[in-house]
Amino acid sequence: MGKALIVGAGGVASVVVHKCCQNSDVFEEICIASRTVEKCDALKNKLDGGRTKIHTAQLNADNTDEVINIIKKFEPDVVINVALPYQDLTIMDACLATGVHYVDTANYEPPDTPKFEYKWQWAYKEKFEEAGITALLGSGFDPGVTGVFTAYAQKHHFDEIHTIDIVDANAGDHGYPFATNFNPEINIREITANGRYFENGQWIETEPLSEKRVYDLPEIGPKDIYLLYHEELESLSVNIKGIKKIRFWMTFSEKYLTHLRVLENVGMTSIEPIEFEGKEIIPLQFLKAILPDPASLGPRTKGKTNIGCIIRGIKDGKPKTYYIYNVCDHEECYKEVGSQAISYTTGVPAMIGAMLIIKGIWKKPGVYNVEEFDPDPFMEALNKNGLPWQENFTPTLID
Amino acid sequence: MGKALIVGAGGVASVVVHKCCQNSDVFEEICIASRTVEKCDALKNKLDGGRTKIHTAQLNADNTDEVINIIKKFEPDVVINVALPYQDLTIMDACLATGVHYVDTANYEPPDTPKFEYKWQWAYKEKFEEAGITALLGSGFDPGVTGVFTAYAQKHHFDEIHTIDIVDANAGDHGYPFATNFNPEINIREITANGRYFENGQWIETEPLSEKRVYDLPEIGPKDIYLLYHEELESLSVNIKGIKKIRFWMTFSEKYLTHLRVLENVGMTSIEPIEFEGKEIIPLQFLKAILPDPASLGPRTKGKTNIGCIIRGIKDGKPKTYYIYNVCDHEECYKEVGSQAISYTTGVPAMIGAMLIIKGIWKKPGVYNVEEFDPDPFMEALNKNGLPWQENFTPTLID
Repeated sequence: MGKALIVGAGGVASVVVHKCCQNSDVFEEICIASRTVEKCDALKNKLDGGRTKIHTAQLNADNTDEVINIIKKFEPDVVINVALPYQDLTIMDACLATGVHYVDTANYEPPDTPKFEYKWQWAYKEKFEEAGITALLGSGFDPGVTGVFTAYAQKHHFDEIHTIDIVDANAGDHGYPFATNFNPEINIREITANGRYFENGQWIETEPLSEKRVYDLPEIGPKDIYLLYHEELESLSVNIKGIKKIRFWMTFSEKYLTHLRVLENVGMTSIEPIEFEGKEIIPLQFLKAILPDPASLGPRTKGKTNIGCIIRGIKDGKPKTYYIYNVCDHEECYKEVGSQAISYTTGVPAMIGAMLIIKGIWKKPGVYNVEEFDPDPFMEALNKNGLPWQENFTPTLID
Repeated sequence: MGKALIVGAGGVASVVVHKCCQNSDVFEEICIASRTVEKCDALKNKLDGGRTKIHTAQLNADNTDEVINIIKKFEPDVVINVALPYQDLTIMDACLATGVHYVDTANYEPPDTPKFEYKWQWAYKEKFEEAGITALLGSGFDPGVTGVFTAYAQKHHFDEIHTIDIVDANAGDHGYPFATNFNPEINIREITANGRYFENGQWIETEPLSEKRVYDLPEIGPKDIYLLYHEELESLSVNIKGIKKIRFWMTFSEKYLTHLRVLENVGMTSIEPIEFEGKEIIPLQFLKAILPDPASLGPRTKGKTNIGCIIRGIKDGKPKTYYIYNVCDHEECYKEVGSQAISYTTGVPAMIGAMLIIKGIWKKPGVYNVEEFDPDPFMEALNKNGLPWQENFTPTLID
């Protein structure tokens, strides 16, 4: 049916590739492109021989012309961008130049002042409309599925949504005293940044990790959750009409926070270079080098993730609460695709977004977040592709 | 009266130099020698103009011939070694070659396998006897004053000493979340090493920091104290006849230990080099580089140290207990000599040892630890030189 260019060859890209190959009726051909072509080749070697034809290419995605050249050569229907968030715009430019649809999982961030903000990508809306192509932003789990869950709640369960609490819990245990998932810079930035939530039309800042609750999560149990800012809050605050309050909560264990606080105290999380043996060294980069490689966590991680939305509002004139969530098991993910749940929950929705675009089910010219499309086909695809969701109509609320 | 060559120009050396200048009737001339002659010159500039004549010299103390040359040129009565413990033997060799007395504050350690053990230096006993010169080992506070305290108790208060608990408490607060005194490598090694104590003729190993008590220290209050091995245990177990049990205890705050544990967990205290940006980097060395310079702690440290010996035994056929200790105030030390109490309590006894040797009061050919001399003149000198001691005949015992 179609062809996808997958930019990136890390943990999430690997899940996307596996899932595309599981849906070879839609993804007849894929091309995996990244700076390190050996990583792409390794993925190809692992999955070759199925019905999806796999190509690989060396690509510096910072360079729009290189992306254009690969698109012209491979002629994909859609580009799935699971590389670094610094490259969203160069890849979107290449899609515009070639008339190819675009999907990503995280908002663009300027490399020098990284920030969770959609303004740079939303600014492409008219250009994508004029080019007649679709850019689907933030089609991971959070952002991504959390937006689809909200759109689904809006469509089927509420006349008005008033509050949303997104709860992202990872009860995985990798057995190391300390390690970070994904890129440790991003983890560290997440918890050292101010929290922020939306209430009555305003954004309210909170001190880092100052808002804490204990929440008893299905299949995981009671966990410390902390209020953070997360990028889907921005799009949901705009796209869910009548919304009064949106917050995002993430679990961190006391042990994890103690480690991170100590590392911050001694200066190991700093990005200011220091002079060491005649060389400028950024402490955070050195910390990354001594911590376990995030890629090594997969085979060792046990336990589950639970990510979902607790939604309150009005249906048929009466107050209603609704909790929709997915539970994902690290070990099962690893068995299936060789990555644990963190990569799995991001990669599967990226594949689904691209699949809905190739099938023509989610297709409207412009730049959109996931909650702006009909959630039903996406929700159906989640159930079919390893991320089944569950509902609870009497959840405990977060005060 | 005499001349001393001081090897080293760090915090302890600075105290020694200050204290020699305060005793210019004994120390008519001193020479400060270290690898970095600028440090020696800075000390000279600070103290020049008093009655003690100060010289400086550039010296690599790893090289015995260089030490011999300086001794031949300066002709000191005694060498005070307050450099690194890796250089004890080369300096002792130079003393033997030139017939000059020797004083240090810490046992020799082989650079490749650092270890608290006197065997290498004790092996010089006959050579020093034959040369007719004295080597006084471990004349700091602990080792050093703790041995003198024990010899004083032996001489004046006990017929038999049965148990000694040495308690080293530092209640100083430098205001940083985390920093180490002296060389952080040594601090870290101290707490990550197994504990060890002497009982009934045997050495008993304990897991690192596994033996913990809370002890209420005079002028400091209740502190967590942990059993460690410390080098004076070796000499006291040999030199105090009839001793049944000796233990060494040091205070560590929970916050300090948490920081150190996290740094150990993530691998920052490792001395195994890792490959980083094309360079071999030892994590512990990098940690040292990002932590506050120990030399910068002096002006900021408030609070006191309390180091002493709780001794039990028999006097006149009856059980007796005796606690002898010194309390030292970080800020007062800094005001007096520009170093805080950690350096002060080590440097003053080094000066006293050298003074007693120059005066001919402590002088017998061979290699000795402090407890092998008459303690009285040393005890008197402590009171006169800023380290007054106090006694308590009904201390709380450590179980």
